[in-house]
Amino acid sequence: MSIKIGILGYGNLGRGVEAAVAACDDMVLTGVYTRRDPSGLTIKTEGVPVRNASELENGRDDIDVLIICGGSATDLPEMTPKYAALYNVIDSFDTHANIPSHFANVNAAAEKGGKIGIISCGWDPGMFSLSRVYADSILPGGQAYTFWGKGVSQGHSDAVRRIEGVLDARQYTIPIDKALDAVRSGSNPELSTREKHMRECFVVAEEGADKAVIEEKIKTMPNYFADYDTTVHFISAEEMKRDHSGLPHGGSVIYSGKTGEGNSHVVEYSLKLDSNPEFTGSVLVAYARAACRLNSEGVSGAKTVFDIAPAYLSAKSGDELRAHYL
Amino acid sequence: MSIKIGILGYGNLGRGVEAAVAACDDMVLTGVYTRRDPSGLTIKTEGVPVRNASELENGRDDIDVLIICGGSATDLPEMTPKYAALYNVIDSFDTHANIPSHFANVNAAAEKGGKIGIISCGWDPGMFSLSRVYADSILPGGQAYTFWGKGVSQGHSDAVRRIEGVLDARQYTIPIDKALDAVRSGSNPELSTREKHMRECFVVAEEGADKAVIEEKIKTMPNYFADYDTTVHFISAEEMKRDHSGLPHGGSVIYSGKTGEGNSHVVEYSLKLDSNPEFTGSVLVAYARAACRLNSEGVSGAKTVFDIAPAYLSAKSGDELRAHYL
Repeated sequence: MSIKIGILGYGNLGRGVEAAVAACDDMVLTGVYTRRDPSGLTIKTEGVPVRNASELENGRDDIDVLIICGGSATDLPEMTPKYAALYNVIDSFDTHANIPSHFANVNAAAEKGGKIGIISCGWDPGMFSLSRVYADSILPGGQAYTFWGKGVSQGHSDAVRRIEGVLDARQYTIPIDKALDAVRSGSNPELSTREKHMRECFVVAEEGADKAVIEEKIKTMPNYFADYDTTVHFISAEEMKRDHSGLPHGGSVIYSGKTGEGNSHVVEYSLKLDSNPEFTGSVLVAYARAACRLNSEGVSGAKTVFDIAPAYLSAKSGDELRAHYL
Repeated sequence: MSIKIGILGYGNLGRGVEAAVAACDDMVLTGVYTRRDPSGLTIKTEGVPVRNASELENGRDDIDVLIICGGSATDLPEMTPKYAALYNVIDSFDTHANIPSHFANVNAAAEKGGKIGIISCGWDPGMFSLSRVYADSILPGGQAYTFWGKGVSQGHSDAVRRIEGVLDARQYTIPIDKALDAVRSGSNPELSTREKHMRECFVVAEEGADKAVIEEKIKTMPNYFADYDTTVHFISAEEMKRDHSGLPHGGSVIYSGKTGEGNSHVVEYSLKLDSNPEFTGSVLVAYARAACRLNSEGVSGAKTVFDIAPAYLSAKSGDELRAHYL
């Protein structure tokens, strides 16, 4: 019997989840839920209803897992605990500092409802976190380095767009080769923020705007750019559309540790993604499978990727995995 | 309370496990067991007894997990089921074709004894298998490529040593850059055995041996070398000792898959290991921690890396992992 999936929120991530569900033979999308007017929303999957989020309130029997595609700043802290009381839920909560409290809130709600809530799925947090924990467990006392990019950072792109005179902007985070090479050598270098990543911005300016002022405002913006070497390119709206429409991303977790009398080992997990939201959506969907199965075995409460055995993510049987993937 | 570890077998892998246990604050080595005369064996850890394997027969209360460091051809098929009836056990069984039957045998014994037997731990099978299953679960329908090396293949080195006139030999398996690049591009190439890896042999020949004959015998050896491009270097015993004493290894699992309307994603997990047995031993020890914990929760039977949630491998608490590794 197919796993019935509901999607709450239909931005880039919601559409990525929709594509991932469509690629899974063992799942079916039964509804997309939105806080906006459902009649204004057309989704890609034919024959699947779009409903107002209010229709989730009393618990529905056509949802085995609700995948919550909201923002970490304000949406998820409220939504995930709320719906975890009624549904098995998955989110991609990524405000690292607030993960412990979010976990506690989701856990309380999910335990009460007898449901599972898997939080902070995706690739970072998510697959990168797994890579850090596996490596640290095998080689205790080693050092993990995380590099992001080359890819579009939506938060940084938004920050540039808020500058006066900017019509549109795209920001790429780029890891610095020299730092990557040093880490891959196993030398455990100490690296400053500026030494690890650089930032490249493509900006469409209003006609008559002072480009020098915009560039200065970007490069000196605290937290976002001031600690990095940043380059700024002014381009036309046509160039933006033609060359920067995608949302590629990726990165690497590189862990180096020692064993015995100084033998060095380097473990690297890296991703090169054409579409950040589609890959993230695919991770959420694999964990939705796990949530459904674990809950059917009687497991409840908040979980993270650390708590889920890999076999639960796969549509393949244990026999098949052992015979062909081990 | 520390996890009490016993090691059965004290070759390269047994010594790697010993080094890994010494690096874990939550574990203690309580004994090394050998089928040979224990009085002939001196181990590295001071104050730890070496005993004959026969002393394992009736079950000992100073072992929480027995790590079995034997060969896959004849040792493990007999040993792992035998000891799984009495102890939580870990092995590194790597004869891929026989994993299903080995799993069934270990499962029957472990279930009967109420113990856990985790088979086929290490990096391939092991961490590479995990990497294949995670990627396949997230991006169903994609393609996995596994490359080994650069590293010493002990089986291939042994095969060369058995040739008449050969005193010593070391064989390196080397992935071919052109194949790696093609796979990393996401183009899903079809690659023959010869296109993926090459083999390089360093040979110490007997005085007066016909080197041309030895080289020909190596290069045409079925299964081991005939399907590869192989280079052979004759060196002195001193050069062998000086330049080829280590057991480095490594490799990469590269998985590429698509989402949505043709967006391509490449996931790569790679290892660069100074010491194959010490890294493998470190993986076995992390899974020993998991075996001990799971068994204390009442879980029994045969398991593989697919069945173990990552948090069980770590000495760190769930709170700590969520706060610092997610």
